[in-house]
Amino acid sequence: MTTLTLADIQAAHARIADKIHRTPVLTSATLDAHCGGQLFFKCENFQKIGAFKARGATNAVFALTDAEAARGVATHSSGNHAAALARAARLRGIAAHIVMPSNAPHAKVESVRRNGGQIVFCEPNVAAREAACARVIAETGARLVHPYNDYAVMAGQGTATLELMEQVPNLDLILCPVGGGGLLSGTAVAAKSLRPGIRVIAAEPTAADDAARSFAAGSIQPVAPTTTIADGLRTSLGEKNFPLIQRYVDGVATVSEDAIVAAMRRTWEVLKIIIEPSCAVPYAVVMSEKIPVAGLRVGLILTGGNVDLDALPWLKK
Amino acid sequence: MTTLTLADIQAAHARIADKIHRTPVLTSATLDAHCGGQLFFKCENFQKIGAFKARGATNAVFALTDAEAARGVATHSSGNHAAALARAARLRGIAAHIVMPSNAPHAKVESVRRNGGQIVFCEPNVAAREAACARVIAETGARLVHPYNDYAVMAGQGTATLELMEQVPNLDLILCPVGGGGLLSGTAVAAKSLRPGIRVIAAEPTAADDAARSFAAGSIQPVAPTTTIADGLRTSLGEKNFPLIQRYVDGVATVSEDAIVAAMRRTWEVLKIIIEPSCAVPYAVVMSEKIPVAGLRVGLILTGGNVDLDALPWLKK
Repeated sequence: MTTLTLADIQAAHARIADKIHRTPVLTSATLDAHCGGQLFFKCENFQKIGAFKARGATNAVFALTDAEAARGVATHSSGNHAAALARAARLRGIAAHIVMPSNAPHAKVESVRRNGGQIVFCEPNVAAREAACARVIAETGARLVHPYNDYAVMAGQGTATLELMEQVPNLDLILCPVGGGGLLSGTAVAAKSLRPGIRVIAAEPTAADDAARSFAAGSIQPVAPTTTIADGLRTSLGEKNFPLIQRYVDGVATVSEDAIVAAMRRTWEVLKIIIEPSCAVPYAVVMSEKIPVAGLRVGLILTGGNVDLDALPWLKK
Repeated sequence: MTTLTLADIQAAHARIADKIHRTPVLTSATLDAHCGGQLFFKCENFQKIGAFKARGATNAVFALTDAEAARGVATHSSGNHAAALARAARLRGIAAHIVMPSNAPHAKVESVRRNGGQIVFCEPNVAAREAACARVIAETGARLVHPYNDYAVMAGQGTATLELMEQVPNLDLILCPVGGGGLLSGTAVAAKSLRPGIRVIAAEPTAADDAARSFAAGSIQPVAPTTTIADGLRTSLGEKNFPLIQRYVDGVATVSEDAIVAAMRRTWEVLKIIIEPSCAVPYAVVMSEKIPVAGLRVGLILTGGNVDLDALPWLKK
């Protein structure tokens, strides 16, 4: 693949449909009354391993030939992608080498281990991480599955939007969070290909607004060091993702940290679902009225629900 | 009505289907692996007003003749039933008189008010509450809609199981919490009528084990004063509910307070959904192995998701 098309996303869906959840879409009259639009929440927080990342990783692993697969897969990620890749490799019966920093949180290490991943610890810096990954690949011949800068991963992530548009006809707008851009690329290609008149708006924290700056500048701008609570979105755009975002995405809206926490809490209270801070960013765009939605049918991709229930942001204050 | 039949429940579903959510059923390979069975969670925490109570109250209100409805409805409840009755009355364009103790939590008062209920405050004791309710009914001619000791309410609550059994064929067992017995009656009549070989087990806190004692004794035993965290289940069985429970329910399992909190937390962590303590009681039965479920297809009715996010039980310790 040298780009991403609707056909790739449809092929991905056929490949992974029996290995993932077809997640439900939730609605709320209360949230609709607040904003004047109709909101449709695609619940990838209910996805396998608790996040949409299961889609991309599963597609990447099952798209390999048998000969490729036999050498295993590898990645350097300590988040949901690592658990998703470990799970997909286990389903295929191959090895997954996961490079993680030695200070990775216990819960994330456990999640990878529970899914059968082979963990390679390294010093907690980017150079050590990339070196460790390169070494594992050199030794094993494993295929690197990047968390977002990879067309097979993007195709998998786009399958959430294929389902959403089947589940909810006639959407006017889709709001999607952006970190590295894997989900956003897949979402935008699927949505615009199926329904050219739809708008796709990316949502990101003001405290990590590299996608907004990149979109405005016309070139990838790196993310500045950030402690945004939306820890899944502290990533710069991938070079394969950015051209797709330029072509298919209509704009990028940014929201404050307080707006993210408020949106997270309201989602818990009204929709009765657990979402992680990164996942609250699209609804934060609606709640803080960064994008007008009155009269519109709006899809929101809820990305994940992996949170520490002992450390909720509204209880820290 | 002088009893409850499958036909009543089917008629209720036809009456209310466009006024409630058809809630999704969630599954989890992780939870299945823990217990060796297949668990199907019917998510009434996603129901209108955040609880299954929307079903019974809506059926009771819309089953009234126009002449009956014109005089309004009344209840003495400070919980989810009050909000559900207020909402149903608003949908029908009639008055709902809700008698609440003067010390009712602010959130519950607000929920009733937001749904258009007319609140009558009274002293916080049973005698004052019943007197206030009788006075309102004498003055207005409103129809009392009891939270559980009412066949129309039971018929509405049973519709959750109609849907569950359409959504999931071939269930072997249904686990359902029991307080006053409105949900349990409706659940058991629906389940046994549709599938005679199914087992229906009620779940309650050991700290409020009146249903277990009543079931064993063959007569209604009142609940002892209790501070169980499952505050929706601190109620004695209704006299209309108990004969149905005796006839259609196979047994009552009880669980400790610690088991309820552990089940609540695991449900939040793994299913990524918000459930209230009362709602965690059926899964607590599975998790603490009070009923064997290995090899079985088990439906669990998740009843509601109205919790105070500032006061989570695992953070109090």
